[in-house]
Amino acid sequence: PKIVTLPGDGIGPEVTAAAVAVLREVAPDVTIEEHLIGGVAYDTHGDPFPQVTRDALGDADAVLLGTVGGAQDSAWNLLPRHLRPESGLLALRKALGCYANLRPVRVQPGLEHLSPLKAELARGVDILIVRELLGGVYFDGDRKIDGDTAYNTMRYTTPEVERVARVAFWAAEQRKGRVTSVDKANVLEVSELWRRDVTALRDREYRGVHLNHEYVDSVAMLIVSDPSRYDVIVTENLFGDILSDLAAVIPGSLGLMPSASLGDGAGLFEPIHGSAPDIAGKGVANPAAAIMSAGMLLRHGLKRPEGANQIDRAVALALREHPTRDLGGRADTQTFTRAVLSALE
Amino acid sequence: PKIVTLPGDGIGPEVTAAAVAVLREVAPDVTIEEHLIGGVAYDTHGDPFPQVTRDALGDADAVLLGTVGGAQDSAWNLLPRHLRPESGLLALRKALGCYANLRPVRVQPGLEHLSPLKAELARGVDILIVRELLGGVYFDGDRKIDGDTAYNTMRYTTPEVERVARVAFWAAEQRKGRVTSVDKANVLEVSELWRRDVTALRDREYRGVHLNHEYVDSVAMLIVSDPSRYDVIVTENLFGDILSDLAAVIPGSLGLMPSASLGDGAGLFEPIHGSAPDIAGKGVANPAAAIMSAGMLLRHGLKRPEGANQIDRAVALALREHPTRDLGGRADTQTFTRAVLSALE
Ligand SMILES: CC(C)[C@H](C(=O)O)[C@@H](O)C(=O)O
Ligand SMILES: CC(C)[C@H](C(=O)O)[C@@H](O)C(=O)O
Repeated sequence: PKIVTLPGDGIGPEVTAAAVAVLREVAPDVTIEEHLIGGVAYDTHGDPFPQVTRDALGDADAVLLGTVGGAQDSAWNLLPRHLRPESGLLALRKALGCYANLRPVRVQPGLEHLSPLKAELARGVDILIVRELLGGVYFDGDRKIDGDTAYNTMRYTTPEVERVARVAFWAAEQRKGRVTSVDKANVLEVSELWRRDVTALRDREYRGVHLNHEYVDSVAMLIVSDPSRYDVIVTENLFGDILSDLAAVIPGSLGLMPSASLGDGAGLFEPIHGSAPDIAGKGVANPAAAIMSAGMLLRHGLKRPEGANQIDRAVALALREHPTRDLGGRADTQTFTRAVLSALE
Repeated sequence: PKIVTLPGDGIGPEVTAAAVAVLREVAPDVTIEEHLIGGVAYDTHGDPFPQVTRDALGDADAVLLGTVGGAQDSAWNLLPRHLRPESGLLALRKALGCYANLRPVRVQPGLEHLSPLKAELARGVDILIVRELLGGVYFDGDRKIDGDTAYNTMRYTTPEVERVARVAFWAAEQRKGRVTSVDKANVLEVSELWRRDVTALRDREYRGVHLNHEYVDSVAMLIVSDPSRYDVIVTENLFGDILSDLAAVIPGSLGLMPSASLGDGAGLFEPIHGSAPDIAGKGVANPAAAIMSAGMLLRHGLKRPEGANQIDRAVALALREHPTRDLGGRADTQTFTRAVLSALE
C-alpha cells in the first residue's frame, strides 16, 4: 500500500517524522511518499495545495497529515484567503471527499492524572466525536467581506446530513449503541433540518441505536463536567471543530487527540492540534496525537486493526513513563518516540 | 424605579421569586411589575412576547428575566418557529436593544471545591465574557428551511462590531486591561471583519488596552484548562453562547452564572441556565444565578453598586453553608434563599 505524508507547517514535520518512524516499524511493507501542503507549499509553489500534491493522492491508500498554518501574526495570514495555509487543508479535505471526521476522546487507565478534571470525572472516558467535515459554514460558496459588512452561510442538505449520520450510527453499533446529535435547533433552521434528517435516518435504518438531541451550548458544558454521559456525538462542521478541541481537555492535552477523516476515497489522518509555531523546530512537541493518527490510519485506512492496537498500547505505555512537556513531563519528541518504538511488541 | 419581571417557563418562576425576595430586601423602594414571556405567554396570549408585555417595558428601568422554553420533546417545539418560547426571548432582546451581554465567570474564594476542575486551576478565576447579542446567525433575516436544504447566515456590520467591542474595552479598563477577541478568522470572512474592526477600534480609541485574537476552537479548550489567562473575552453571538455555557464549568454549575444585557435602553438581567423542565416545580432549583442577576441589575441597571456588592457577598456566604443540589449539596430553593436573605448585612 502507498501512503502520502504531508508534514506541513510548524511542528507538523517533527510529529509526522515520529509517526512515520512508528509506521515503518509496524507496517514495514508500506510505501511512503512525502509532499507539501500549507504554508510551506505556498512558499515553494505559490499554492497551499499544489497540483503536484494533488496528483500524488490519486493512487494513495491513505494520507497522513501533520499540521498547517502559522502564528496569528504570520505573513501567511496577510495573503488572500485562498492562498493561506488553512485553505490548503480545506481544499485537501474536499479533494479527498472526507466528509466524516472521527475524533476519539479516550482517557487511558492510569493516565487520569494528566487531566485538569478531577480524576473521578476523567476516569474511563471513551467518546467518539463524529464531525461533518465538508459542509456548513466552512464550505458554502455564499460568503463575502465587502466594506463594512461580511457574511458566511451555514448550509446543509439532506444527503450531506445523512452520509455523516450513517457513520455515527455505524460506529455506535460497534460501541455502546448511543448517539447524541448536537445542534442549535432552538435558533437555527439549518439545525432543524439536521435534527429532522438524523432522526428520520435512525427511524428508518438504525432502530437499534439510541438517539438523543442536545443543544451545542449545553453539550459544551456537559462534555467537560459529565463526560461519561456520551458515547458517540455527531454534529456539523463548526460545532464539531469547537467541541472536539474542547474535548481535548478531558485527556489533558490536544497532544493526545488523533483523528481520521473518512469518505469517498483515501482517508485522511491527522492530529487535531495546531502548528504550535512557538515551539516549532525545538524538538519538544508531543507526537502522541500524530502517532495515534498513524494508528487510526492502520485501523481505518489499511484495515489492519492489530497494528493499530499495537500502536495504541505502546503510546499508553510511553505516556505513563515519559510524559511530554504539554503533560507536565520532561520527555522531548525524540525520547517519547523512542519510548513508543521500544514499547511496540 | 420600576422593574419588570418576566419569570417565564420551567424553573423560571421559582428562581425569579427568590431573586425578587432578595431585591425587595436590598432595594425596598423599587416597584416590581410581573409579566409573561415564553411558553406561558404563548399559552395565554398565543404569542411568546405578547403586546401587553412589550407595552410594560416602555417605562421600565430594568428587566429581570427567569428562563424560557420546554423540554426537547415539548409541544412548544412543534409550533412554527416564531411562536416558540425562545423566539419570545430573542424578540425581547431585540426590543430592548440589548447588544452587549455580560457574563462574568468568577470563582469565589473558598468555593474552588465546587468546580470539576482541579482546585488550583479554578482558584481566583475572574473572567468577563462579553457576548454580542443582537447579530450574527441568530438574527439575520436570510434563513430558510425548504425541502432538503436549509441555511442560516452569519452576518455582521462594522457598527455592530464596534458597539459591543466598546463595551469590552470599557470593561477591561475597569479590570486588568486585557481583551481577548474570539473568532474563526482562519475560515470565516465574517470573522475577518470582526477582527479588523475590533483591532481598528482599539488602535483608534483604546490604546491602553492590551488586545489579542484567538480562534474559538482554541479558546474552548484553553478557557477550561487554563482559565486564568483570560480577563475580558469579546465575541460574536453564537460563539459567545457556546463559550459562556462552557465557562460555567469553571465555578461548577450553570446555577452560578448570572448575566446582564446592556444596550440602548433598559437592561435585561437573566441567569444563563435554561428552564430545567425536569426539576421545575419541585422547589430544588439553585436560584443563585437569578439572585446574582438581580445584583447585576442593581449595579448596571440602577447604578447601585453597594446593593450589588451586598448581594454578591451574601450569595457567596450562602453557597459555602448551604450548597444546592447542582453543587452536590442538599439545600432547596427556599433554604438557599433564606440563607441569602439572612446573610445580607
Ligand atoms: C485549521 C482549521 C481550518 C481547522 C478547522 O477548523 O477545521 C482546525 O481547527 C481543525 O479542527 O482541524
Ligand atoms: C434559549 C436560547 C435562545 C439562548 C441563546 O442561545 O441565546 C440561551 O441559550 C442563552 O444563552 O441565553
